[in-house]
This record gives sequence, C-alpha cells and structure tokens, in this order.
Amino acid sequence: MFCHFLSFQFQFSAIHTQGSGHTQLSTQSMAQVRNQQVVLNNYVTGFPKQSDMKIVESTVTLKLPAGSTEVLLKNLYLSCDPYMRLLMTKDRTVGTGTYTLASPLSGYGVSKVLESGHPDYKKGDLVWGITKWEEYSLVHSSQIRFKIEHTDVPLSYYTGILGMPGMTAYAGFFEVGYPKKGENVFVSAASGAIGQLVGQFAKMTGCYVVGSAGSKEKVDLLKNKLGFDEAFNYKDEPDLNDALKRYFPEGIDIYFENVGGRTLDAVLLNMKIHGRIPVCGMISQYNLTQLDGVTNLANIIFKRIKMEGFIVNDFYHLYPKFLEFLLTHVREGKVVYAEDIVEGLENGPAALVGIYTGQNVGKQVVHVALE
Amino acid sequence: MFCHFLSFQFQFSAIHTQGSGHTQLSTQSMAQVRNQQVVLNNYVTGFPKQSDMKIVESTVTLKLPAGSTEVLLKNLYLSCDPYMRLLMTKDRTVGTGTYTLASPLSGYGVSKVLESGHPDYKKGDLVWGITKWEEYSLVHSSQIRFKIEHTDVPLSYYTGILGMPGMTAYAGFFEVGYPKKGENVFVSAASGAIGQLVGQFAKMTGCYVVGSAGSKEKVDLLKNKLGFDEAFNYKDEPDLNDALKRYFPEGIDIYFENVGGRTLDAVLLNMKIHGRIPVCGMISQYNLTQLDGVTNLANIIFKRIKMEGFIVNDFYHLYPKFLEFLLTHVREGKVVYAEDIVEGLENGPAALVGIYTGQNVGKQVVHVALE
Repeated sequence: MFCHFLSFQFQFSAIHTQGSGHTQLSTQSMAQVRNQQVVLNNYVTGFPKQSDMKIVESTVTLKLPAGSTEVLLKNLYLSCDPYMRLLMTKDRTVGTGTYTLASPLSGYGVSKVLESGHPDYKKGDLVWGITKWEEYSLVHSSQIRFKIEHTDVPLSYYTGILGMPGMTAYAGFFEVGYPKKGENVFVSAASGAIGQLVGQFAKMTGCYVVGSAGSKEKVDLLKNKLGFDEAFNYKDEPDLNDALKRYFPEGIDIYFENVGGRTLDAVLLNMKIHGRIPVCGMISQYNLTQLDGVTNLANIIFKRIKMEGFIVNDFYHLYPKFLEFLLTHVREGKVVYAEDIVEGLENGPAALVGIYTGQNVGKQVVHVALE
Repeated sequence: MFCHFLSFQFQFSAIHTQGSGHTQLSTQSMAQVRNQQVVLNNYVTGFPKQSDMKIVESTVTLKLPAGSTEVLLKNLYLSCDPYMRLLMTKDRTVGTGTYTLASPLSGYGVSKVLESGHPDYKKGDLVWGITKWEEYSLVHSSQIRFKIEHTDVPLSYYTGILGMPGMTAYAGFFEVGYPKKGENVFVSAASGAIGQLVGQFAKMTGCYVVGSAGSKEKVDLLKNKLGFDEAFNYKDEPDLNDALKRYFPEGIDIYFENVGGRTLDAVLLNMKIHGRIPVCGMISQYNLTQLDGVTNLANIIFKRIKMEGFIVNDFYHLYPKFLEFLLTHVREGKVVYAEDIVEGLENGPAALVGIYTGQNVGKQVVHVALE
C-alpha cells in the first residue's frame, strides 16, 4: 500500500472532491466550451501578488485542427514551482524566457488526452509534462514528458513525488551529491516539494539529515512524518552559523541548496572537506531587487567544495529507473509525500504566490478538474 | 633548449649573481653560524606591510642532533605565494593554521641537503617542499615534496613552473576544468605564477584564452610572450561585465578563478551552459576586513555550472606525470615562464608584501643563497 498520508491525516484539501463546474462539458461536441485561464497581468518586480495574474474566461473548441500533430489536453492538476517566478520577470538576468503578457502561464501539470494528432498519444491517455494554466490546452507533443502508466497512486503525485520535483530530488541528491553512508546532509526548504524527498533519500542512504523550514508546523512534519533526524525553523535562529554548528558539530558533507543567500553563506562556514553542494534553487533570491551578497566563498578552496548547479531537464533519461525505484517505495509506504492541494484553477494565483512566502506545507498543487 | 627568457630578456634580477655573504660558512664545522630569519612580527589585519615581518639574526649549528630523523637544509630559493597571507591572520575563518609570532614564516622553497637523518635523502641532494624563511632549516622529511633530479633547468623553476604553482595550474586546468578543444577560457591574475601556465595549457589544448591582469606591462607580457589570445587590464575597465562580453561574446566555458569578489560576480553573468570554474584562489579577498558579496550565484543553476575548489596537496600523486610533460615542453621552449626574482632573504618581506598589490611581474621568488 502506498501512503498518501497527508490527504487525510493532515486534513489538507482532499484530492477527489468535486471540481469547479466542468461537468457540463462534453469532449464529443464541436461546440465551444469555456476555457478558464490564468494569464499574466503584468511583469513582476519583487514578490509576486495575486493581482499580477488575472482569471479570464475564453472559449475553446474541443477538436484538433485538421492535420494537426499536436495534442489536446484536459488539465487535471497544475504544479506551483519556484522557478515560475523567474518567468514573470521582464528582463531576466539569469536563464532565458519569460511568460507573455495576457497569455496563460505555463508549467508542469497532469492532463488527460482528449484528442491526439501525434502517434505516441491517444484519447484517454494520462500524461504529465508542460501544459498551460487553463482548463484545456493544445500542446506540442514535445511538451509532454511521460505517459502515466501507474494510476494506483494519486494522479497529483505526478506533479510532485513522481514528476519533476521527485526527479529533481533524485538526480540532485544521487547524481550530483554523490552521497555516502554515514555522511551529514543539510537540506534547506526541507518540507518543500523537493526537500522532503531529499531528506528521505538521505535516510535511505544511511546519512544523518537535518532540514530547515519556516514554521513550527513544517519542522514538526520534517521530524515526525518525513523522518529527518533534526529540523529547525530558520526564522527562530538569530545566527544561522550558530544553528548549523549546533546541528553539525563535525560539519556538513552535502548541502542540498534550495534557497541561496544568507543560508548559503552560513553553510559555507560549516562544510566539511570535500563537501558537495548540489545547487537546485535559490528561492530566497528570486523576488529580491537587491540580491544578497555571499561572502564566504573562499571556503570553497580550503575545503575543496564542489558546488554544482543542475536542472532536471538534463536527467530525464533516468526517469524510468527513478520511477521504478520510487513507485516500490511509495507503494510500501517507505517514502511518504506531503501535498498541499487547492481546489479550482481560480485559486491558482493565490497558491502560486503563497509558495514564495512559504504558505504551503508540502508540495503545492492546484486541482483543476476531475478526469 | 628550455627558454628561461625572462631572466635576461626582461632584465629582471639575474638569478645567479652572488648571494648575501654566506661564503664564510662551512658545513663541516660544528661551530655556530649565522641563520638570518624572517619572522612574523605581529598578526595582520588588512593588507600586510613589511613591518609585519622582522629580519632577525639567530645562530645555528650545522649538525643534526644525534639520532634525529630530520633533514638539515640550506635554503636556496623561497617562494612568495598568495596563501601565505591567510597564515598571517590570528583567527582564521577559512582553512586552518597560522604562523607563530616571532617564528620564521614557512613556505615552499628549493633547498640543498646538508645532512640527513632520513634514508630517502642524503647530503648534497637538492629538494623542494615546505621549508622556513631562514638560511638553514631543520625539517621533518614529510615536509620535503620531491627530490630534484633535473638541474638543466633553473633551480628557481622548482618554486614555480616545476613546483607547487605549476602542479596547481596543471591539476586545476586539466583535472578540475576538463578542457575541450575549441572552448573559451578566462584566467584572472593571468600573469601570476599559476595563471601564466593555465593560459599556455589552454592554448596547447586548442582553446581560446583571455587573461586579466593589473598593469599594461602584464597585459603586454600575456599577449606577446605567454601566448594568450587576448588580455586586458582590469583596472582600466569600469564594468567587468562589459569587458567580458566584449572578449567572450559567446560566453566562457572555463573560468580559472584566482581572485574572487567582483571578478567572479561578473564572470557568473558570462558563463556558458555546463561551464566549469576551478577555484584555485581568491586573492582579492585575502586582505579585506569586509569581504565582497557575490550576488550572481543563481547563474550556477540555470547554466548548470560546476564550481570546484581544489588544493594542490590532493594532486601530488600526479607530479611525476606532470614533470615529464612539462620538462619536455620547457626544454623545447614551448612553455615559457616569467619570474620576478629578488636577491637576499632581507628583501623577502617587501617581495611577499608586493604580491598582494600586484608589484610582481610573473612568479615572485626570493633568492637566498647559492648552492
């Protein structure tokens, strides 16, 4: 049995309640149907606000254009991921690409194929990949990452533990972090979509693992449900260096970097020789107009630290291996996953905005529609 | 023929002139002889000054104590290396160890064995390794890195191109940087002991290489003698980001990091995807009481950059391979080396202090005595 404990033990929004009035839609009709969308209202400076996005109601014909090789999707779950903030900036200094004003956001999601012009997909398939923040999307087949073959686990898991965040945690920890039994692991944003899995992977590997998070509720989750050896609320620590020295008197072998800024600066003072820092994200910096300066980088030399950025796109060739590994553990309840699911696309903007101030407890998902 | 061009072409201090009055000393006598020393006068804050060191005249008996397994050395050349500044700080926040007040500095040097209590060494051997800033030193055999077997090249080379800096350049560029033909390489402190070799290794590998340095003389040296494709004086550049965009319109594959601080910050904006940053040193930060903050680290993620600190001690097992490789090139004149040699131990403090403000042109060496 897999353990999807958070949907009932923590009384988060249950996954399988009724969606928001889509039942009148028919996939057989050529008639136009409503296609609610979340579009970018303006480019964002600083922390994003709900008003930076807008809910618009367009219409769509649920029929592929003749000769199209694209795929028509009904979106079921949409994923709120930290990187999305970067795409809301007009002139990015890091990475490439931005969202288009007045167009729907794009992001990872779980969808059902309504019609397919591509031989790899057929009507009724469940898929996960990059889709748009709307009820129905026409996507190029290359945007679909994988067909979903295993539905004995919640479909929402393919936005998290079995999707991009899970694959990211797996690749970053095992392929970039090179963990060894007995090593000391520190994870920031530890109760988030990725961090909670890194901690569990670290325990599986025989490591000592400590997580930081931003509330007592999250710290309790880390210690009591997610198996971290220790966890602390970074907001309660006047000096992160002191906190890390307390939890890692012998230093840190692997720091799984999700936040950047002053946390990284304190970590650099506490790394062990030949330590590794897989750099997955720096969410603390994404909303700042004046970036934090990191001053302790010289430790990289003396401690021979390897700090390596990675993005999941470079590792999807490992997905089949990852899925096999993780499905077994999920079904046996040996890996658990905390999700924070909001109901209805119209609540998407609030959910997305919330992840940048840590409102979510666990992986933030938007439930758009039932199958 | 090797090309030790700088000792004559550039009219630096010639290497083989008379030392400073050591000829009266006899290695056979049990009598005490003078042992001039450079000792630490006080711990250093900010940039080091000559007065932070003191020349003292002690005496020494040129005879090993009975039963000693140590080695008695006559020091010939001493090396001025950036890391030495870190050992002058009382409470280090990076690395470990400091110099002891009123005791001689230690550092790399080339020495002649006067007497040996260790079977690996015998009277008359030339060696290089860690010795002290004095005329005669008693050292543990583990401080000797290697016996010098090839004396058809200047002995001073074993403080530089054929010693620690050479090995550092080789290990950092080839073993940490993983260079490929056609890649774009940027080297800071490029005319220094290590940088000048990294540039030549890059050219051998078929890379495009640009160096930065702090004077017109150094820039000319890089372009005209050391084979760099381009070089610039960072002091003439109001915006390093602009400079790097000019020299690397397509971005940087390998940044060989010697300086840290604002150079690193500008480089991070100009790295290519899957770029590598071997971190050898951060000399711009060693004398600061308020460290520079590096703000552009999020580029490490989006560009999947690997930033890896290393120290040469982890690579000395490669020294025989390195020496064979480099001796051939030195003898054929295919690799050249710029040295800046001062005469006399009493001029050591000024030479050492000078490297932190870039007074040296090429590898800074102190010539203590003739064989």
